[in-house]
Amino acid sequence: VPATGPEAAAKECLGIVGVGLIGGSIGMGLRARHIAARVIGIDRSPETLARAQALGAIDEGSQAIDAVAAADCIVFATPVGALPGLMASAAPFAEPYALVTDVASVKRDVVAAGVPLFGSRFVGGHPMAGSEASGIDAARADLFEGAAWALTPLQAPEAGGATARVARLVEELGGQPVQVAADIHDHLVGLVSHLPHALSFTFARAVALDPSAAAAVDMAGASYADLTRVSRSSPDLWADILLANRDELAAMLADYEALLRAMREAIESGDRAALLGRLSTPPPDA
Amino acid sequence: VPATGPEAAAKECLGIVGVGLIGGSIGMGLRARHIAARVIGIDRSPETLARAQALGAIDEGSQAIDAVAAADCIVFATPVGALPGLMASAAPFAEPYALVTDVASVKRDVVAAGVPLFGSRFVGGHPMAGSEASGIDAARADLFEGAAWALTPLQAPEAGGATARVARLVEELGGQPVQVAADIHDHLVGLVSHLPHALSFTFARAVALDPSAAAAVDMAGASYADLTRVSRSSPDLWADILLANRDELAAMLADYEALLRAMREAIESGDRAALLGRLSTPPPDA
Repeated sequence: VPATGPEAAAKECLGIVGVGLIGGSIGMGLRARHIAARVIGIDRSPETLARAQALGAIDEGSQAIDAVAAADCIVFATPVGALPGLMASAAPFAEPYALVTDVASVKRDVVAAGVPLFGSRFVGGHPMAGSEASGIDAARADLFEGAAWALTPLQAPEAGGATARVARLVEELGGQPVQVAADIHDHLVGLVSHLPHALSFTFARAVALDPSAAAAVDMAGASYADLTRVSRSSPDLWADILLANRDELAAMLADYEALLRAMREAIESGDRAALLGRLSTPPPDA
Repeated sequence: VPATGPEAAAKECLGIVGVGLIGGSIGMGLRARHIAARVIGIDRSPETLARAQALGAIDEGSQAIDAVAAADCIVFATPVGALPGLMASAAPFAEPYALVTDVASVKRDVVAAGVPLFGSRFVGGHPMAGSEASGIDAARADLFEGAAWALTPLQAPEAGGATARVARLVEELGGQPVQVAADIHDHLVGLVSHLPHALSFTFARAVALDPSAAAAVDMAGASYADLTRVSRSSPDLWADILLANRDELAAMLADYEALLRAMREAIESGDRAALLGRLSTPPPDA
């Protein structure tokens, strides 16, 4: 008899589609805590699957999407660009009782693709963890320890069981579930994650394009390290994320440009009072 | 006989004008290593002087600028805005053999003010260390360990002795002296320090002005922490720094705005190839 209720979630078979930094860390976290009965990794790269098995992130690997058939819970952990197509390919093989979630950084389009395929068994997710590194070799069992993990469940009475199961999975991995509607998620995460990534990528480019870049970074301190760290993230991954959250990002970047222009004008005109006002808004504490 | 050559620098009397994060850390570093014979702190705040003495940053304190008269080496460590006026007040009391340096983040105006007052005994300096914290309570004896420390000596044959003495002081504090002309310094440091501070202050303001800021920071991860850290620095200090490097900053901010606008346009138009190009310039390694 397959696991169907929240009480059965502790020993289910987990299928992870995409065994990179996030998917690999989920597998490691569950296996290290002996939570899942079995973790199947599904990835197009046999090298990634072998590495994931060697690192203890999965019990077994498959290159074929039909391997999701064995899973009580399917976690899609591929880059957001590939996600809707991959969910559609997997859907015919998924058991009708299987719980389905994902970890993509943008939720509106993913939820719009997942709900027609999986109904109220689909609970969108987004762990606010990760790093500028990517790939299975960067995975860690404790990656989610203390991190917020957004969940965007269908707002329907029958979705409660699925939401509770995914929330428990998140807590078992050390994360803190935060329920939020997909469009609200995309605004909030756009502001505190996608926007700072866009600013960091652009700062890295501004420095690199300066003819004196090499001499400048010889004198760089902590502010340079902080402002460039996330610009070392995967350009491919981030192109997909920024495009998937296009409307929010475009508005936020336009607002930021206006704020920056006003600061520049205060500097150019030597208006110390105006400049001081623009430097005196502390960031809200996380 | 007062110390005049490089070989005498090890046991001189040091006068530190402005006993905050940087001035206090210099005092602590020299006293912890038993390098200076005596450290006199000069600050308008008696509370700061008492605290600096309690923390072991200075041997004695004075609120009067004429206390620089006892120093073989005078380090100006006040915010850049106050610096030219303070150097002019101190000059009549300084011994004619006294070495003079400073730690301001912008060098062109400071060197222009210091050289007429102190001649080739003035060697501009700027340690690339510090933090968003300020004040004597944030001071640490090891603050400069491994940090670059720009020196902008007068390019004259008679300036060699002074340069060597300040370079040795920097090395004794664990710093790495980097000689650079003042205007070059202001460009390089504008790029890797002042520009990222301006971007961080503006990002903090963008988040704070969003009506959903509180909910957003509840989901914030490391990119938010990184991009906001230096925005917690003193607004007063940074208003002075950004204004003192006005021309460089205005040009760099305009360039940054153009790069950001181009990124936004690639996002708005869904031009993935153009966006990918803008995300694919890794920052030069520090």
